[in-house]
Amino acid sequence: MPRVAILMGSDSDLPVMADCGRILDYFGIDYEVTLVSAHRTPHRMVEYAEKAKSRGIKVIIAGAGGAAHVAGVTAALTTLPVIGVPIKTNTLNGLDSLYSIVQMPSGIPVATVAINAAKNAGILAAKILAVSDDTLTKKLEEYQESLNSSVLEKAQKLEDLGYEEYMRQM
Amino acid sequence: MPRVAILMGSDSDLPVMADCGRILDYFGIDYEVTLVSAHRTPHRMVEYAEKAKSRGIKVIIAGAGGAAHVAGVTAALTTLPVIGVPIKTNTLNGLDSLYSIVQMPSGIPVATVAINAAKNAGILAAKILAVSDDTLTKKLEEYQESLNSSVLEKAQKLEDLGYEEYMRQM
Amino acid sequence: MPRVAILMGSDSDLPVMADCGRILDYFGIDYEVTLVSAHRTPHRMVEYAEKAKSRGIKVIIAGAGGAAHVAGVTAALTTLPVIGVPIKTNTLNGLDSLYSIVQMPSGIPVATVAINAAKNAGILAAKILAVSDDTLTKKLEEYQESLNSSVLEKAQKLEDLGYEEYMRQM
Amino acid sequence: MPRVAILMGSDSDLPVMADCGRILDYFGIDYEVTLVSAHRTPHRMVEYAEKAKSRGIKVIIAGAGGAAHVAGVTAALTTLPVIGVPIKTNTLNGLDSLYSIVQMPSGIPVATVAINAAKNAGILAAKILAVSDDTLTKKLEEYQESLNSSVLEKAQKLEDLGYEEYMRQM
Amino acid sequence: MPRVAILMGSDSDLPVMADCGRILDYFGIDYEVTLVSAHRTPHRMVEYAEKAKSRGIKVIIAGAGGAAHVAGVTAALTTLPVIGVPIKTNTLNGLDSLYSIVQMPSGIPVATVAINAAKNAGILAAKILAVSDDTLTKKLEEYQESLNSSVLEKAQKLEDLGYEEYMRQM
Amino acid sequence: MPRVAILMGSDSDLPVMADCGRILDYFGIDYEVTLVSAHRTPHRMVEYAEKAKSRGIKVIIAGAGGAAHVAGVTAALTTLPVIGVPIKTNTLNGLDSLYSIVQMPSGIPVATVAINAAKNAGILAAKILAVSDDTLTKKLEEYQESLNSSVLEKAQKLEDLGYEEYMRQM
Amino acid sequence: MPRVAILMGSDSDLPVMADCGRILDYFGIDYEVTLVSAHRTPHRMVEYAEKAKSRGIKVIIAGAGGAAHVAGVTAALTTLPVIGVPIKTNTLNGLDSLYSIVQMPSGIPVATVAINAAKNAGILAAKILAVSDDTLTKKLEEYQESLNSSVLEKAQKLEDLGYEEYMRQM
Amino acid sequence: MPRVAILMGSDSDLPVMADCGRILDYFGIDYEVTLVSAHRTPHRMVEYAEKAKSRGIKVIIAGAGGAAHVAGVTAALTTLPVIGVPIKTNTLNGLDSLYSIVQMPSGIPVATVAINAAKNAGILAAKILAVSDDTLTKKLEEYQESLNSSVLEKAQKLEDLGYEEYMRQM
Repeated sequence: MPRVAILMGSDSDLPVMADCGRILDYFGIDYEVTLVSAHRTPHRMVEYAEKAKSRGIKVIIAGAGGAAHVAGVTAALTTLPVIGVPIKTNTLNGLDSLYSIVQMPSGIPVATVAINAAKNAGILAAKILAVSDDTLTKKLEEYQESLNSSVLEKAQKLEDLGYEEYMRQM
Repeated sequence: MPRVAILMGSDSDLPVMADCGRILDYFGIDYEVTLVSAHRTPHRMVEYAEKAKSRGIKVIIAGAGGAAHVAGVTAALTTLPVIGVPIKTNTLNGLDSLYSIVQMPSGIPVATVAINAAKNAGILAAKILAVSDDTLTKKLEEYQESLNSSVLEKAQKLEDLGYEEYMRQM
Repeated sequence: MPRVAILMGSDSDLPVMADCGRILDYFGIDYEVTLVSAHRTPHRMVEYAEKAKSRGIKVIIAGAGGAAHVAGVTAALTTLPVIGVPIKTNTLNGLDSLYSIVQMPSGIPVATVAINAAKNAGILAAKILAVSDDTLTKKLEEYQESLNSSVLEKAQKLEDLGYEEYMRQM
Repeated sequence: MPRVAILMGSDSDLPVMADCGRILDYFGIDYEVTLVSAHRTPHRMVEYAEKAKSRGIKVIIAGAGGAAHVAGVTAALTTLPVIGVPIKTNTLNGLDSLYSIVQMPSGIPVATVAINAAKNAGILAAKILAVSDDTLTKKLEEYQESLNSSVLEKAQKLEDLGYEEYMRQM
Repeated sequence: MPRVAILMGSDSDLPVMADCGRILDYFGIDYEVTLVSAHRTPHRMVEYAEKAKSRGIKVIIAGAGGAAHVAGVTAALTTLPVIGVPIKTNTLNGLDSLYSIVQMPSGIPVATVAINAAKNAGILAAKILAVSDDTLTKKLEEYQESLNSSVLEKAQKLEDLGYEEYMRQM
Repeated sequence: MPRVAILMGSDSDLPVMADCGRILDYFGIDYEVTLVSAHRTPHRMVEYAEKAKSRGIKVIIAGAGGAAHVAGVTAALTTLPVIGVPIKTNTLNGLDSLYSIVQMPSGIPVATVAINAAKNAGILAAKILAVSDDTLTKKLEEYQESLNSSVLEKAQKLEDLGYEEYMRQM
Repeated sequence: MPRVAILMGSDSDLPVMADCGRILDYFGIDYEVTLVSAHRTPHRMVEYAEKAKSRGIKVIIAGAGGAAHVAGVTAALTTLPVIGVPIKTNTLNGLDSLYSIVQMPSGIPVATVAINAAKNAGILAAKILAVSDDTLTKKLEEYQESLNSSVLEKAQKLEDLGYEEYMRQM
Repeated sequence: MPRVAILMGSDSDLPVMADCGRILDYFGIDYEVTLVSAHRTPHRMVEYAEKAKSRGIKVIIAGAGGAAHVAGVTAALTTLPVIGVPIKTNTLNGLDSLYSIVQMPSGIPVATVAINAAKNAGILAAKILAVSDDTLTKKLEEYQESLNSSVLEKAQKLEDLGYEEYMRQM
């Protein structure tokens, strides 16, 4: 049964949001992915948001671009934590998406991550679930350790090869 | 029977949005004013938007600040033209409101006016109604003429008095 | 007889503004398309704006980029509603166009849509005309329903295929 | 035993961050408030972040302004979810704080709320804790319902009094 | 006979634009000051711009705020150099005015000065007139020398008093 | 003998600034083009600025990008009008250049044109020279007329062909 | 003999730049304070920059606002490290100053600190001098330690009093 | 023994930061290059910063993008001057990096250079070292002279060939 829902306003957001699914796979967290648009499917958005908790969803991740409303209105309709992913836009580079998602009024927060940071949205969902899941906490520790190791290995290689040679091998 | 609806997310927007009502009074257009928040009253927003047309509303004006979603989601739920008024905010001066309202995705436009320009939203509503209302067109012509006359009178006074004296009398 | 006029300052804006014509075709709304520049043809702009109403035009759509003045000055010369389309620019991405169009002074509104959102300008024109045209209202309902259906179909396909397979087929 | 930690870089942030404590009181969630600066007390930051989980903390909220680093580095040092509150600054209005907190690199998310939105940070913490706490979920439902009721009451009053009278009584 | 015209869209711009008149007085350059709005008096703008040259005007200075169109359209209607003064606005601090004035399309330049820099607009007009006026060139040399002297005097005083004492006397 | 000087900080600005020379050729105005960097050749900048007037130069055009100082400091060293061309940059798109050139302090104006608008800088120089040159005024009238004609021709063609066919022929 | 020079373009910058002198006093570093404007005293700027090193100056700190050129051109005229302090402006809040100072072209760096951060400019000068001054390094260690202690004390007091009481005593 | 440390958060920053190493080679300054991430290797960052001085490092250069924290936290942990290089980002073009690095709080400066200006960071390091190294001062004088000569040569060539021919040869 999925614990995380990944919503997006349009399938054009999928290449960005796919990273969210992949990192949840990495952590072994069940999730579902679907399209929910605040503007093209407003009723679906309302229904989805209101039923999510009873369907067993624990965290909702919503990605949208431009005047991005799906994260905010969904957050208004559920007690579940909602994570917003501002999608980069062609004209304003996603600053419009960021402002539309993060600047929520008092009473209705959206946990916003960086523009296009779908992977980080997945990791944040894992951190939220890990509050009451020690196995997941363990995996997160290992994940953070792997980030550390990866940098250390690269740093070692960089120091060994010198940066000019390292770049040639990139 | 009101032809225009003036919605706002919070009564703190009222001092700005009141200008909208006053200019509609000037044009003799019936309107109603109420609070509809995308985040605090999402169901009311949906119901309001869906019933507005059958209640005789012809144009909806929605003012909101920050991550301002009420104009956009309302526009998704009605065929009526929706005018959005981005309200100035304490932190980003209303640029967040502007982006959240104007940068709507393909399919669902919001007719956006300047930040805090509630009066212009009212005039735009009048222009929209005047498309099929010759009396209103006449009033708009007179209004635009009065703007012109007012500047001409001031220009005359300015040229007569000189700018230093004119400023002393301001 | 055209009910909507689509103006643009330069033929370089045509690839963007063409979407406006296409969606009006979809709604069966007659329109005309021409070039009117506030800076290269100021007299033409004045004459066009002043005669538009008597020629039967109901709504004017004006697209321009950079210091975009055609929408604002046209709005000053007619009682018709004027919709402004800020065109994306090479240097400031259309933020200059947006500010030049949306930030109109008190008395003279321009109904502004998103940067490059010529299609939405057409839909907004349709919504304005539909205020007194029930057939058009019907078409708008169908259009909004089709947006909804399209998302639902894609959502179903996405859930059926999974997002990795769905992306491969995109 | 506190379940939420409220950190801030400077006591000048306290008037903003106090709202965070007050809303946690409202939800009956134990918390601690202290000063942890990434730049003036970097070792304290490291130690605090590393020990927080073992001390029973479930969620960390960090507010900071300007080049705001405490949320990001804390998030790197714990598996707990970290909520960042960008504090408004005198020169860039908090846009610097927002960018410094939300634009985290891949691997290390910070759940960012609006500029100065300390109250929303508290509510988000409650939503996160409520994932495994049904009593808290209940309280959140009541809270969201109270937001709704409050708007409905004000809407009723606004419709009864008219907006001019309503404003006189504000 | 005035050689410089100072135009502004609204008498609310007068406290800023007055500095322009004062510096022209200082240089002994005749000028006229009047109100010309692109949006409230579009015909007056066209007429004014077209007749300015034959009336003996050599340089036009136009100040406006927000979607500021008077400088650009005036420049389109005359061969005279047009200087634009972007007026500071309440919401976007004059960035909207700056973009609306400076980002002119190819073919129609506006000589733009800093936001609210009406005094500099006057000095620029003097520099333009001085191209064919040696007496004015002389005055400009003296003016620039006086700026220099004023700084040198203050620098001497600052070095003599020390900065703490200097500030007490400010 | 050149009447206009075209300066740029780096030969990488030449592809942009070349448009300035070409339009001056069109108007038959003699000019010189050279490299003067505020940062790499500060003494050359000082010497160039101070001698320009006595060498017969009437207008200086300076293009630079990023922290663009050559226009401002040159303006401080001469009574000649200085036109600044902000060059588009890779990182901030020329907004840095624009601010560095237009936001001059009181006393020292730079006549700023749009980002990368070297052609407009040349036209502005022509407008300045035309203040005391009737032949040049005539050419400017013809130029502005040619802009007008060109749009009218294209408009005619657009109306004749229809926009879809017009675009195919672009 | 002064080791640090504190320059500013105008005595209106003195209330900000005074913090720079005070922190240098704290570290026991001799300095001089004077006015040097890139635009009002360009020759003084050139002379000052060229002689500074031979006069014993080791680090130059320059504060300026708007199109702020003094730091950049000074840096071009000396091998000494130049620290730039962008001064907050009335219209663009110092973003213009920041871009004008930090975005220097290749070859001529300016060590830029935060908007209005004159105190930090002084500390940075101390850090630069400390590279070859062990006594100063010691003082810097003590200073950084004092920042740490000050936060720890306040943190202790905050934990002892509770934040509501702590705020009452602020 | 390296006198300068070049740190970066990710090896994806290497193509930018390599310019830093190359210019230090040019000046004959020993340096080391390694990866130190505030978020993936926070302990390594702390340890590196604290040991740098005792290892003989005199200046630290840190490049990072987005919410860039490594320069600021490193500066908090050492008395050495820290130079920050904001790396250009895909979404906000490095404005996020710039704000995260330059807007440091009182007490902890970072010497910030332009976005992607790794070469300038190296030159700034050289200027800092030259405060107590006359040989290096000499090299810097020669370097600045070579910048000057290079522009003069290009200027000569440009004047000789004319700009059209010069561009053909670029």
